[in-house]
Amino acid sequence: MEINEKVLLEETVEKIKSKKIKHILRIQQTELKAVDEFMYKKGITRMMPLMMAPITDTLNHSVEENELKYEGQDFDVMKSMIFHKQLALVNPELDSLYIVSPNIRLEKAERGDSRHLFEFSQVDFEFKNGNMDQVFSFMEELLTYVFSEVKANCKDDFEAIGVGTSHLDIVTPFKRYRTEDLREKYGEDFEEIASKESTQPFWLINHKREFYDAEDLNNMGTYLNYDLIWPMGYVEGLSGAEREYKYDRILVRMRELGVNEEAFRHYIELAKRGELVKSAGAGFGVERMTRFVCQQNEVSDVTVFCRKPGKGKYIF
Amino acid sequence: MEINEKVLLEETVEKIKSKKIKHILRIQQTELKAVDEFMYKKGITRMMPLMMAPITDTLNHSVEENELKYEGQDFDVMKSMIFHKQLALVNPELDSLYIVSPNIRLEKAERGDSRHLFEFSQVDFEFKNGNMDQVFSFMEELLTYVFSEVKANCKDDFEAIGVGTSHLDIVTPFKRYRTEDLREKYGEDFEEIASKESTQPFWLINHKREFYDAEDLNNMGTYLNYDLIWPMGYVEGLSGAEREYKYDRILVRMRELGVNEEAFRHYIELAKRGELVKSAGAGFGVERMTRFVCQQNEVSDVTVFCRKPGKGKYIF
Repeated sequence: MEINEKVLLEETVEKIKSKKIKHILRIQQTELKAVDEFMYKKGITRMMPLMMAPITDTLNHSVEENELKYEGQDFDVMKSMIFHKQLALVNPELDSLYIVSPNIRLEKAERGDSRHLFEFSQVDFEFKNGNMDQVFSFMEELLTYVFSEVKANCKDDFEAIGVGTSHLDIVTPFKRYRTEDLREKYGEDFEEIASKESTQPFWLINHKREFYDAEDLNNMGTYLNYDLIWPMGYVEGLSGAEREYKYDRILVRMRELGVNEEAFRHYIELAKRGELVKSAGAGFGVERMTRFVCQQNEVSDVTVFCRKPGKGKYIF
Repeated sequence: MEINEKVLLEETVEKIKSKKIKHILRIQQTELKAVDEFMYKKGITRMMPLMMAPITDTLNHSVEENELKYEGQDFDVMKSMIFHKQLALVNPELDSLYIVSPNIRLEKAERGDSRHLFEFSQVDFEFKNGNMDQVFSFMEELLTYVFSEVKANCKDDFEAIGVGTSHLDIVTPFKRYRTEDLREKYGEDFEEIASKESTQPFWLINHKREFYDAEDLNNMGTYLNYDLIWPMGYVEGLSGAEREYKYDRILVRMRELGVNEEAFRHYIELAKRGELVKSAGAGFGVERMTRFVCQQNEVSDVTVFCRKPGKGKYIF
């Protein structure tokens, strides 16, 4: 392995010395500063992230599992703070919250593509009594603000990396599509094809995935969840949903999806007591947004250290 | 264990429903927003955090160890990004950087005191060609700005939690003490006693700890490292140092402290090539700053979910 490690060390140093990374990070920093300002003005409470917990996102795809033991108890590394968002909103004074949340998702090697990292950060937000329409207009307003700040403050950085900013001239409200309609039009690769054909971000509604995404009771078998799709082939940039929060619905959905009820016993107990509240929210990937904003080939191009799945060995 | 779990669940729900947490989080959010603004104005590049890596902080005290396996390789959970800060500064265009960095330190149960959490966030910064004086005046200017923003924007929140703000009227430059002098004056508990006797934050210089903290070559056996001590008994709020970066010095220090050189072979190789650069920096704990700002009994009082060591069982 020694030769291989030497090659990897050279690659690692070359990546660290990237001539464009300082500019990309400055643009990303401007995005995050604008996000925080926007949240602050809207009165949305910021929570600090957790990185480990007895329960975490069930995720709709399989990753390498890893548990941390602490004081004899098993903790998962945080895949997302979805349940901690729901639980924090049990506080009667908290109406809305967000977290700049680092997530670990130990993706299988086959996800060593242009858009996955095995650790990344997402901006994760949740509104008590929220719904899809509210999340959509909130996010459209947020992006309008963030992109205008980036355009106003990062001219030199865009010039340095040789990227224009016309893709940041977004027009709101974004179009809304349903997965069943795009699937009919484009076939199974509908998300990628529709992203490539679009010049504007769009909403994609109704995905069969997690138990905590609310099923549409007026149209069973469809779901009140949504993704924001970046245009020009940059694909998924945000996932969110109205949430299941009622005891009976949570149990039904957990059983459909084979969730380990024992692991979720305290969460289920709070649902049973009626403590969980109606909410809707979403999380958007920071590095994926930066990849789109900076029009980079790979999400890995916006990080200093390599966290792309499938390398087999990581130096730092 | 069932009864015990029921009691813990009630405690957990009671903590989530804390009447003061919304105000504390708003104050903390104001601190962080001011920190980001300050960094932005100073042109300090923001990096996103990593949560796992092949090498992490060696720490000068023992915690429960946990490794994550990914693609057959062992990763440590991130105790601090000290090495990744040094490594990122290998990029010739990056002069300074910071990270809002969540850290996992699985403290032994005996650290279940008023000032430890087993996961927390720190603002971690590093300056190429930096030195102690520069870090001190930078941090004093930063705190002056952060506290003035908090006082200007959070009057209602301080009122709601029944806390004044006179402790935020800081006078800079802070006093500087050396550990050997305070030890002589107060004995082994000098840090806590001096903190309790002070009404202003102060610097505490020269700690025998990590290999990467530079030894003072003009006064061997003493170190160019420092803590910022919060007054009124709130004790340590920041740790930092000028860094070792030369190959021979790093090897000497590693051998003194019994560091695993095999685990650090790539880091050592870069030092050998002269790639590591002179730097100085520090990290300050977000929740500890908030505890001081909000004058709370315990650092655990500023979080929604319990991460205090020694509970033996954690519900969420």
